[in-house]
Amino acid sequence: MQIFVNDPDFIVEDMLKGFTAAHPEVALSTLNERVVTIKDKKKKVGVITGGGSGHEPAFLGYVGEGMLDAVAIGEIFASPPAQAFLDAMIEADNGHGVACLFGNYAGDNMNVKMAIQMAEDEDIEVKYVVATDDIASSPKETREKRHGIAGGYFMWKVGGAKAAAGGTLDEVIATAQKVVDRTRSICVGVNPCTIPAVGTPNFMIDPETMEFGIGHHGETGIEKKALGSAKEIAIEMTEAILTDFEFDESKKLAVMISGLGSTMLMEQYVICGQVLETLKEKGHQVEKVYVGNFVTSLDMGGISLTIVDLDEEIIELLEAEGQATGLKNY
Amino acid sequence: MQIFVNDPDFIVEDMLKGFTAAHPEVALSTLNERVVTIKDKKKKVGVITGGGSGHEPAFLGYVGEGMLDAVAIGEIFASPPAQAFLDAMIEADNGHGVACLFGNYAGDNMNVKMAIQMAEDEDIEVKYVVATDDIASSPKETREKRHGIAGGYFMWKVGGAKAAAGGTLDEVIATAQKVVDRTRSICVGVNPCTIPAVGTPNFMIDPETMEFGIGHHGETGIEKKALGSAKEIAIEMTEAILTDFEFDESKKLAVMISGLGSTMLMEQYVICGQVLETLKEKGHQVEKVYVGNFVTSLDMGGISLTIVDLDEEIIELLEAEGQATGLKNY
Repeated sequence: MQIFVNDPDFIVEDMLKGFTAAHPEVALSTLNERVVTIKDKKKKVGVITGGGSGHEPAFLGYVGEGMLDAVAIGEIFASPPAQAFLDAMIEADNGHGVACLFGNYAGDNMNVKMAIQMAEDEDIEVKYVVATDDIASSPKETREKRHGIAGGYFMWKVGGAKAAAGGTLDEVIATAQKVVDRTRSICVGVNPCTIPAVGTPNFMIDPETMEFGIGHHGETGIEKKALGSAKEIAIEMTEAILTDFEFDESKKLAVMISGLGSTMLMEQYVICGQVLETLKEKGHQVEKVYVGNFVTSLDMGGISLTIVDLDEEIIELLEAEGQATGLKNY
Repeated sequence: MQIFVNDPDFIVEDMLKGFTAAHPEVALSTLNERVVTIKDKKKKVGVITGGGSGHEPAFLGYVGEGMLDAVAIGEIFASPPAQAFLDAMIEADNGHGVACLFGNYAGDNMNVKMAIQMAEDEDIEVKYVVATDDIASSPKETREKRHGIAGGYFMWKVGGAKAAAGGTLDEVIATAQKVVDRTRSICVGVNPCTIPAVGTPNFMIDPETMEFGIGHHGETGIEKKALGSAKEIAIEMTEAILTDFEFDESKKLAVMISGLGSTMLMEQYVICGQVLETLKEKGHQVEKVYVGNFVTSLDMGGISLTIVDLDEEIIELLEAEGQATGLKNY
């Protein structure tokens, strides 16, 4: 794969420069070049996230009214340092406290917790929720070890909307945690991704095979197996999530199909059609459907399926106004 | 590249099934399986388009309130038949006439014109505008031969908004034509694309090279040359368009960077940053910036740059409410 890049070691800087130049009505750069903040700050609980780059539109694309107030941007596939999380907390705080809603990875966990201690010294109250939606990354008995992937979108949208509606810090945290508890995802990878500064794929997927349950950085999945048809893959992904949920009745669900980078929107809709058919056959009611590149893995070929067990509050907050650049117009 | 597909010969059918299942609040399938229509029809001029598949979210993603009322969907990279265009016209008409706003390709031109003749027999008045934004596809002296690429977005958004605001058929056509006259695009390709039913790339781009001015189906561009830095490429694309425009004063512009398929959003923002810098250096004022996959070419690696010479009416219509699934939330 050839790409558009200047110095690959500075691709994140160049991206940030382009992003803030493109969207000055939404997001601003800050003194810390790796922290981007919302343009119009409101008197409310601040909501932030952070993480490695390479997952665009996450996390930058979710800065905006009704979603995130600030994000800390790391190098590609690497956590931002504690200082960047702290600076994002400082940017987002206006006396109502800050909710830090991030995906469960060792580096992010460590740096967020250090930043929270540092924020205490600045008299900023910070609480956090950790997305753990990737069912392939750890068994159900150790759910707290699971990684956060595209399901983070729902945590940010719902947490952000709760804060925008005037929720207290504890309310924002409780609502974001509720969404996390009701969200499951799984990925399938069919082509590897390449870190620009490395220039060669950081793992391989053999021809005619796929990696079921691959992680968002190419982490080993559940099983390498023969590449199935879109129908077989969609059914297997859906059933893996339903098995994990162990629903004992029909549910109202949200479904997100996210391309991991180089997977065409056409393919995403092919998968989506079968996922919706399978959920209907199992008696579930799908209330909301999202299809597109919401959380990616550089140029990986693959797809994530996320399912959310909705309740009335979550539906209302998903439908609340939001103005981030990564949000779709529906 | 491995992809998610059932029978590659039926990937368009499977995509359409997934699309209409995902977005029943926006778009509906019709008796003609290759025509998708808006759910809530309004009493106004109908606005339609059509074209080959493989350019998603175009054209399907632009069906919705304030944009398109119906689209005719062709096979991958192939025009829909005249009957599909006619059926889209019939779906979109409610007595106020239909504006068919399509991209300039031989097959589409022929089939639209046949469909217009057939529509006359049904007492439906149809007028059309042809997007010709791709400056690489023909010299300026033969501008009418140029192909339509991502610039079509502006024709659909502005034409759709004009119709939604109650414009007559002649007003919708005049406004869409004005936008076409003020829009220029150019592409750079760095990796080829693969038609699913073929399974191998339909053209090649040698390593360490790029194709400046490549078309949306891999049509030969202006020049095959050494792959430059993102900065060099962005400057060259911007200057090619400015040279074609021959502005004699500072202008208010809209800029769209569209990925062609497998090009990361990160790369798109890197290119965008330099395009905006170059336009500013030349004294132009960029009023609106769009970054993302708006019109693609299957899984091609590459990018298109589109620049629109705005006026107050175009700005107002671009900012008008729209609800299509391919629209961004800004």
